[in-house]
Amino acid sequence: MTADQPPAVPPDLAPDERDRFFLGLAVDQARIGWEEGGVPIGAALVHDGRVLAVGRNRRVQMGSAIRHGETDCVERAGRLPASVYRSSVLYTTLSPCFMCAGTALLYEIPRIVIGENRSFSQSEELLRSHGVRLDVLDDPACTELMQRMLTERPELWREDIGEEP
Amino acid sequence: MTADQPPAVPPDLAPDERDRFFLGLAVDQARIGWEEGGVPIGAALVHDGRVLAVGRNRRVQMGSAIRHGETDCVERAGRLPASVYRSSVLYTTLSPCFMCAGTALLYEIPRIVIGENRSFSQSEELLRSHGVRLDVLDDPACTELMQRMLTERPELWREDIGEEP
Repeated sequence: MTADQPPAVPPDLAPDERDRFFLGLAVDQARIGWEEGGVPIGAALVHDGRVLAVGRNRRVQMGSAIRHGETDCVERAGRLPASVYRSSVLYTTLSPCFMCAGTALLYEIPRIVIGENRSFSQSEELLRSHGVRLDVLDDPACTELMQRMLTERPELWREDIGEEP
Repeated sequence: MTADQPPAVPPDLAPDERDRFFLGLAVDQARIGWEEGGVPIGAALVHDGRVLAVGRNRRVQMGSAIRHGETDCVERAGRLPASVYRSSVLYTTLSPCFMCAGTALLYEIPRIVIGENRSFSQSEELLRSHGVRLDVLDDPACTELMQRMLTERPELWREDIGEEP
């Protein structure tokens, strides 16, 4: 796959294997973001087993305050009918911030698969209170990327979540 | 002013006049957006009496699912230190959706001045529960723009808030 073209999905995967596969696309994006000098958080939006878009945090790459992994992914998916969002799954390497959670709530995305929530967790209670199903896979690759981020680029990370340096 | 360069602020305005002035910049943006064929919602981010950025909904103009008035404004303000967001005021012609509210919560913007909330209101309880001060000016120009939107471009509006056509 390239960074921008989602791959075909292998057939005959069990549900948990499918989740791991789609989360893997988000992890690929996070790794690309890290190599670009950015924040290593990635996402994928999946509808009916088809990848609509992948995305990654582009704070550094685009000088952006609103392109988190999830919002970048939603943006790259383009203008979609409400019915598509409402039957899609959002995969993200890290538990969403309020902005990304609010984006999921606006479009009523019913399920979010989260790589890990050890490094950061802000909106899970809000999302659950609105009926969003959250599945946390506690994926070691996601945690490792974030731990590297917190150690090697701590000021960038604090900027990304609106905290003082 | 051009669409992209915020103007100087007139001196010696009383606080309520200042709010009306800054909301007026958001209304200007909303009108530009309407003329462009888009969703007539605008915003301005103001710090210490200085306009950091103005923005407008760009769903149509940029094919964007995440550029609402408020998020476009935050994006155009660029990467800012946490301390700036935390002492800024966000002006918006319409009560924020969850995505835009979440953006304000992420960056801990402490006050939002809302042009009107008759046409749409989704996140005010959430924002208040996090201590955000909301001031609703009930501005006729804002309501008029939205009523025109709801009448003349209803499907675009429903798309913008993630509702079925």
